[in-house]
Amino acid sequence: MPTQTLVMLRHGESRWNLENRFTGWVDVDLSDKGLAEAKRAGEQLKAEGFAFDVAYTSVLKRAIRTLWLAMDELDQLWVPVVRSWRLNERHYGALQGLNKAETAARHGEDQVKIWRRSYDIPPPPLSPDDPGHPRHDRRYRDLTPDQLPACESLKDTLARVLPYWNEVIAPDIQAGKQVLIVAHGNSLRALVKHLDGLSDQDVLELNIPTGIPLVYQLDENLKPQGSRYLGDAEAVKAAAEAVARQGRAGG
Amino acid sequence: MPTQTLVMLRHGESRWNLENRFTGWVDVDLSDKGLAEAKRAGEQLKAEGFAFDVAYTSVLKRAIRTLWLAMDELDQLWVPVVRSWRLNERHYGALQGLNKAETAARHGEDQVKIWRRSYDIPPPPLSPDDPGHPRHDRRYRDLTPDQLPACESLKDTLARVLPYWNEVIAPDIQAGKQVLIVAHGNSLRALVKHLDGLSDQDVLELNIPTGIPLVYQLDENLKPQGSRYLGDAEAVKAAAEAVARQGRAGG
Repeated sequence: MPTQTLVMLRHGESRWNLENRFTGWVDVDLSDKGLAEAKRAGEQLKAEGFAFDVAYTSVLKRAIRTLWLAMDELDQLWVPVVRSWRLNERHYGALQGLNKAETAARHGEDQVKIWRRSYDIPPPPLSPDDPGHPRHDRRYRDLTPDQLPACESLKDTLARVLPYWNEVIAPDIQAGKQVLIVAHGNSLRALVKHLDGLSDQDVLELNIPTGIPLVYQLDENLKPQGSRYLGDAEAVKAAAEAVARQGRAGG
Repeated sequence: MPTQTLVMLRHGESRWNLENRFTGWVDVDLSDKGLAEAKRAGEQLKAEGFAFDVAYTSVLKRAIRTLWLAMDELDQLWVPVVRSWRLNERHYGALQGLNKAETAARHGEDQVKIWRRSYDIPPPPLSPDDPGHPRHDRRYRDLTPDQLPACESLKDTLARVLPYWNEVIAPDIQAGKQVLIVAHGNSLRALVKHLDGLSDQDVLELNIPTGIPLVYQLDENLKPQGSRYLGDAEAVKAAAEAVARQGRAGG
């Protein structure tokens, strides 16, 4: 097999990215800027001549709508789309819905720093009785109680993303399919950590900008031969820094 | 099993419906009126509280976009969507792209009447070398030569729609899933003929209006217990008559 490309795309800015709230599994839509980012991503992919065979996304509308807008620009509406909760954003538990100031006021600055800087410490869980707990949402009804998160560390997110990569997405790439994955800050971090072999610490420094296609060249064993963001290098850098400044509040 | 509902929806008006051209497998987009019809269909489904588990559609953008717009109104972007060429519009062969006057000029009024009034006489086939032949289109590359149409009678359309109904869609309904099918004038005619047991002649008189949800109540054997269009009865009647006046030029 010649090298194969894989494209990942983080959804455009959401309304809560804009307000710097922890979003996680809350199904918040794109902001106007996010809509424009998604369209722009489609234009960039079109300019490079990408012709997809299958697209994977989460069950959250900010990712699905980003995919729709990009596919519309590409004029590839017919391409099969597979949605999975396994590509959802990290579940931020009881932090979901809180902005930076609210989180600090409720839990203290020191605790917030610990959550932000840790790979394996989850935020406080949502109560099963909380109406925001995914067990009350029809889209998750086929998940087992073990699969339904009340909160996740980044490590937990990786643990549910990677089986999907290994069992569903990777075989498509190895079969020669041109794959697009439109997902979230932390589910994409999980994939990049896996592909690039990042350490638990290094992945915390990784900030994937919204709405900019990330193209990997993979060999036959799916080892990366290189990766690049589409578009102007300065714009990519500025976008990643903007994400870092937000303190990664929830993708 | 209690009775189960199934919703069918013909895509909104396309740009070629508007120009009265045979469309078939040509991937023409919705007109402005078609966009509005799709949105309205979503509003009607929302007003009746429909909560879908899976949606089926064709690989043609006028159906896919209608589905997107309806699901957006319903706020059900997460629902799995399955695209299949088997739900495509009837393939109109060498008539595709021609308007009513062009067709009559090229083939004669009498021949056009025969095509219009027949269940099993296909229009002239597209040449395999015609760039519009589906063998040149990436989205159909997994079809066998036998499956790739160069033209279809309504009977031919039925013959490729029904296996998909029987093997893929019907089992979902019998498993209790709430199914939405967004497709085309003739692929939906095929389903209605099958469900309602219409004769080959009666199905030719059936005009399914664009953008109006058609709701079937089905028993455990998928026998219809009743069906109705959503919305105002006069509006439904006017829409069906408008379709009949168009001479069903290509869905």
